[in-house]
Amino acid sequence: MRFPVGRLEGFIAAVFEAVGAKRDHVATMAQRLIEADLRGRTGHGLMRVRPFAERVIAGGVNLDPTISLFHETPVSALVDGDNGLGPVVMTHAAETAIAKAQASGLAWVGTRNSNHAGAAGVYPALALRAGLGAIYMAVAAGNVMPPWGGVERLLGTNPMAVAIPAGDEVPFQLDIATTVASHGTIRVRAAAGEPLPEGWVVDRDGEPITDPDRVDEGFLMPIGGYKGSGLNVMIGLMAGVMNGAAFGSDVVGRSQPPDTPTNTGQTIIVFRPDLFAPAGELRAEMDRKLREMRSSGEAGAAVRLPGERAVEVEAEQRRIGIPVPEPLLADLRSFATELGLEDRLV
Amino acid sequence: MRFPVGRLEGFIAAVFEAVGAKRDHVATMAQRLIEADLRGRTGHGLMRVRPFAERVIAGGVNLDPTISLFHETPVSALVDGDNGLGPVVMTHAAETAIAKAQASGLAWVGTRNSNHAGAAGVYPALALRAGLGAIYMAVAAGNVMPPWGGVERLLGTNPMAVAIPAGDEVPFQLDIATTVASHGTIRVRAAAGEPLPEGWVVDRDGEPITDPDRVDEGFLMPIGGYKGSGLNVMIGLMAGVMNGAAFGSDVVGRSQPPDTPTNTGQTIIVFRPDLFAPAGELRAEMDRKLREMRSSGEAGAAVRLPGERAVEVEAEQRRIGIPVPEPLLADLRSFATELGLEDRLV
Repeated sequence: MRFPVGRLEGFIAAVFEAVGAKRDHVATMAQRLIEADLRGRTGHGLMRVRPFAERVIAGGVNLDPTISLFHETPVSALVDGDNGLGPVVMTHAAETAIAKAQASGLAWVGTRNSNHAGAAGVYPALALRAGLGAIYMAVAAGNVMPPWGGVERLLGTNPMAVAIPAGDEVPFQLDIATTVASHGTIRVRAAAGEPLPEGWVVDRDGEPITDPDRVDEGFLMPIGGYKGSGLNVMIGLMAGVMNGAAFGSDVVGRSQPPDTPTNTGQTIIVFRPDLFAPAGELRAEMDRKLREMRSSGEAGAAVRLPGERAVEVEAEQRRIGIPVPEPLLADLRSFATELGLEDRLV
Repeated sequence: MRFPVGRLEGFIAAVFEAVGAKRDHVATMAQRLIEADLRGRTGHGLMRVRPFAERVIAGGVNLDPTISLFHETPVSALVDGDNGLGPVVMTHAAETAIAKAQASGLAWVGTRNSNHAGAAGVYPALALRAGLGAIYMAVAAGNVMPPWGGVERLLGTNPMAVAIPAGDEVPFQLDIATTVASHGTIRVRAAAGEPLPEGWVVDRDGEPITDPDRVDEGFLMPIGGYKGSGLNVMIGLMAGVMNGAAFGSDVVGRSQPPDTPTNTGQTIIVFRPDLFAPAGELRAEMDRKLREMRSSGEAGAAVRLPGERAVEVEAEQRRIGIPVPEPLLADLRSFATELGLEDRLV
């Protein structure tokens, strides 16, 4: 069943209003979560409305945070989120970085005392709208694997997202976890009753786990073995440790009470794409190179580059609505009823 | 056979002096190349002396370049290398970024008209010596794979290297290609007559190639499938296109005459690790987290983190010398004789 974008955005806003979020925070939550669905990141949009709101209800989030800047320079700042809603804190950080990069060419803004901010890709996309590029990194909620060669879960799926503007072409946008599979992907397989491919999850002895019901016994695998493990640790150090945010054993997982502050850390580096060339030249050259890659398929067939799917999904969904799978719809309707919002999702 | 570090450094300097490099360039070449061996990056140290020098002899490198800064701001600059020696141009770029980051907290410096700069990890290591962190990216020399889903070789092994300072612990240092295997690794296998593991190289139909002699028919595989392919393209756009340097079909490969200018591009982002916390606190926290990961092995056994091997290799080699495998030694001695330097490597 499909719903118009505006209806779902209104529903998300109604949920966060109902649980007591401030008016401007409500709008930000609705925007960032619906943007995830619009990019095809279904695991971080509507699917997160209930868990995010339930965390608020459990007292795990500060609804009236004092979001402050520390260690501010013309090119950097640390945003202390005061345990506010993750998308709200991270949007503040992204906007701070965008303003600094517009003035200085380049900016690095980190967060601490933030929370899960939803889909990684939506933050570089904010920079794109301002004509800027960005690199975003986050310490993921919950640890799923050991450092390469270890047996203790100290690392999450730590994602990275990147955007680089183009001219007429669809801009380059990458949004990846540094593990082969995310828990969301695994849950989809489990729900479909399908075994997992080898290489996604291993047990303590490094043997593959293919039974989706045994995932919790195992470790997720990083992309490219020690290489992806290294990228994952890099993200944890840059987005966590450098900011005074949680990393390693400090990361709060699903086994802890839902009112435990997570001290989540994120980092965004925003830059002017035309640091080193006149903007017009840069745009033309980006377009030329993106087109070259796009036409590099068999017999000149089109190759899809990172970012194209997001644009296609958004265009389609704005036209014909966002599809909400039946189990999710049932769950959201039941949640709506709990909150007295049963008329909002019909 | 092992040689003292100083002797090999002196030999490298003698080679570049013999082919006509300027005095300060000679010293830089010797330092960057020997640093590669000292980090265990044997594919980018002594092994590169002959190919780098032969490119000079063939007229492919400008020995008297005017290395200039363009588009300079307090946090950014583009270094035009005027087709000078890659390690010389990139060292200039790294030093420029280090000076700017010391003053401003953060800097992004790109290169164009550079050449192959050797091991990626040696440039973030320059930042480490100044107490700074860094992210380095380079467009690799020669294309080895198509964009994900394509069949035209437009991408190289595009490496990334990262350094983050710690306190008493060995700092985090990552140095990876974004392909599963590098050509160097494959050459080592081929020399040993061993088949390649599946997942390193595929043919046009995506079928694995395990015969090392058939590598040139195939495509190297990116780490993590479409994810590593995306990182590889990101590096190419940031280190190549943004700088006006070669990317895609403009990249000069081994099939082109050795005097073809490569217009190689690199980028280095240098940052103060204590952007967001007093330096002492940051160092203590980095140490605590690195120690936690290091002791996460089976029964508390040590786990080796990225950067530790480089430090161990350097300590050992400074003590007992750098091992030079017999075929490489024979080749270097024959090259030395060609240059009238036969007394320098005995």
